Amino acid sequence: MQTIQSDNYPIFFENSIDELVKFIERGKYSKFFVLTDEHTSEYCLPKITDQLNELGNYDLIEINAGEESKNIDFCIGVWKTLIDFEADRKSLMVNLGGGVITDMGGFAASTYKRGIDFVHMPTTLLSQVDASVGGKTGIDVDGIKNIIGTFTQPKAVFIDTDFLETLPPRQILSGLAEMLKHGLILDAVYWNELKSSDLTKPSTAMVHRSVVLKNEVVMEDPTEKNIRKSLNFGHTIGHAVETWALNDKPDSLTHGEAIAIGMICESYLAHKKTGLKAEELNEITSTFNKLYPRFTFSKDIYEELYSIMLKDKKNMDGKVNCTLLSAIGQFNIDNVCTKEELFEALDYYLAG
Amino acid sequence: MQTIQSDNYPIFFENSIDELVKFIERGKYSKFFVLTDEHTSEYCLPKITDQLNELGNYDLIEINAGEESKNIDFCIGVWKTLIDFEADRKSLMVNLGGGVITDMGGFAASTYKRGIDFVHMPTTLLSQVDASVGGKTGIDVDGIKNIIGTFTQPKAVFIDTDFLETLPPRQILSGLAEMLKHGLILDAVYWNELKSSDLTKPSTAMVHRSVVLKNEVVMEDPTEKNIRKSLNFGHTIGHAVETWALNDKPDSLTHGEAIAIGMICESYLAHKKTGLKAEELNEITSTFNKLYPRFTFSKDIYEELYSIMLKDKKNMDGKVNCTLLSAIGQFNIDNVCTKEELFEALDYYLAG
Repeated sequence: MQTIQSDNYPIFFENSIDELVKFIERGKYSKFFVLTDEHTSEYCLPKITDQLNELGNYDLIEINAGEESKNIDFCIGVWKTLIDFEADRKSLMVNLGGGVITDMGGFAASTYKRGIDFVHMPTTLLSQVDASVGGKTGIDVDGIKNIIGTFTQPKAVFIDTDFLETLPPRQILSGLAEMLKHGLILDAVYWNELKSSDLTKPSTAMVHRSVVLKNEVVMEDPTEKNIRKSLNFGHTIGHAVETWALNDKPDSLTHGEAIAIGMICESYLAHKKTGLKAEELNEITSTFNKLYPRFTFSKDIYEELYSIMLKDKKNMDGKVNCTLLSAIGQFNIDNVCTKEELFEALDYYLAG
Repeated sequence: MQTIQSDNYPIFFENSIDELVKFIERGKYSKFFVLTDEHTSEYCLPKITDQLNELGNYDLIEINAGEESKNIDFCIGVWKTLIDFEADRKSLMVNLGGGVITDMGGFAASTYKRGIDFVHMPTTLLSQVDASVGGKTGIDVDGIKNIIGTFTQPKAVFIDTDFLETLPPRQILSGLAEMLKHGLILDAVYWNELKSSDLTKPSTAMVHRSVVLKNEVVMEDPTEKNIRKSLNFGHTIGHAVETWALNDKPDSLTHGEAIAIGMICESYLAHKKTGLKAEELNEITSTFNKLYPRFTFSKDIYEELYSIMLKDKKNMDGKVNCTLLSAIGQFNIDNVCTKEELFEALDYYLAG
């Protein structure tokens, strides 16, 4: 599988562990740090420990697994560890884990001493197809997802789909939602291919295809002024449901499950507002409903969801902005949706 | 006094308040925030309140005055206020204050929603000649100065030396130390001019000259790979003494007083290592000793000072790096100094 060239950094798909080792050797870093959570320490780190030990001079920083860790307190912990271990500007941070690790490790590194180098070795399907590319770093404050962060590119990304073998099926499905999104907004052929594949184990070729699609978008619009907004499909409503669930019932919803809900709701809005055909709406709805468990909530939380949407960094001037579809494979950005429309879309999801 | 063009942003010296108002109007911001401390709320804000009120739609964020406020806890407070006031990506942050306000406001803005616009209206001599130019933002963690930050440029800087009229003499002297540094590293003529002037009230022309000098350096080397290191003269030892004092005896030392100590010590090292003549060392030492009060400390803290220097972001590979002088007006970067040399330099200062 070919190495993908992103904005001044490579995304490796072959011999990724060897490539990581070569990268660290060539970089002549004074020291490197490996950021993990307790899951990646157990399942992923052992696969690279021997080679890292040969490189010498590294320290491990481990945080708790889960989105609850992606907050400023854990980030301060990472900064303090870097201070204690006397990390200097020629240090490297290796982020080994899912999106929490890559987003937070990226933010901690991009601000420590005004920025040290970092690389990602994403170990979940979600982080391989999403967090690995695009240069967004971020942490949560006050339960608002990614409210604080920077646009900073890693120096390289090393993708090894072997890590997915130890990933629970629910985590595979979480990443799959982003892959399905890539198809829905950019590539109807890919959407159809995914639908007719064995989705319990996406192939390396599919992961590669998703990264190629996302990379094309972010290269053209790195700071999200226009076409990068296409990637927000499903995320306006999805993020709100995810944020609410994170505060109210931690671990009840994965990111993919949340944006699957968001994509059903926003496809409904697309049908109402931007010309998505009824049969396409049905196709999308039934695909997600087949793959993802039903998640129910009371209509009493609609106002709270709306207020979360208003605080979302994608929205401005007190208006909620959605990326919708005009057809499968075609996106349509900057659609202002009223509170009534958003509530109607939530009704559509709940009606199942 | 001519507007200075820095890295894609202007630094105004004339009609600065009017320029700020015009800037905000032209920017079509959804909202703006003014960050102050209790001093600038009292002495500086009233000078611009009428004009700000006419612009409408702004909120005030006030923090405690003093370097102790420049830490992550206050920064979280600023972020939470922005969240509560529903600041969106088209919001603007106006930093009205000294270096604590400009450094922290810049950091908070550069990371909120991955970056919103910010401008500085520096109100102390130190922030006018130093923090206003160069694009460094930063906060302290664990008492380590500016350990966390970004390189992000403001959209504009508005300097009005009328603000200096209410500034205590000790704060004038604090800024003056940076101006004297600009002369020592870059411009012997300016150093001589400053020495023979009334230093209780530096002129707008002098402030302008310092900003021109600093701006030339940072434009040539924005990320401090080489000549920008010249600005670190006095700061290796000065920062350590300042950090120690901040933890041990808050408010006992201004930034300028600390780097005056640092410049005496590092001029001694320059005499030993990089050819600064004995008479130049004497001239520098006596100039600073005349202007700044003696600050004494016990030799027992040398080891602690050394350990602070090692954690300084300027230093790498466990070595302490100093910018020295080869003559007045000529700097010499990347001089590794041993612990013994640094202690000898501290002895030189204490011997008075």
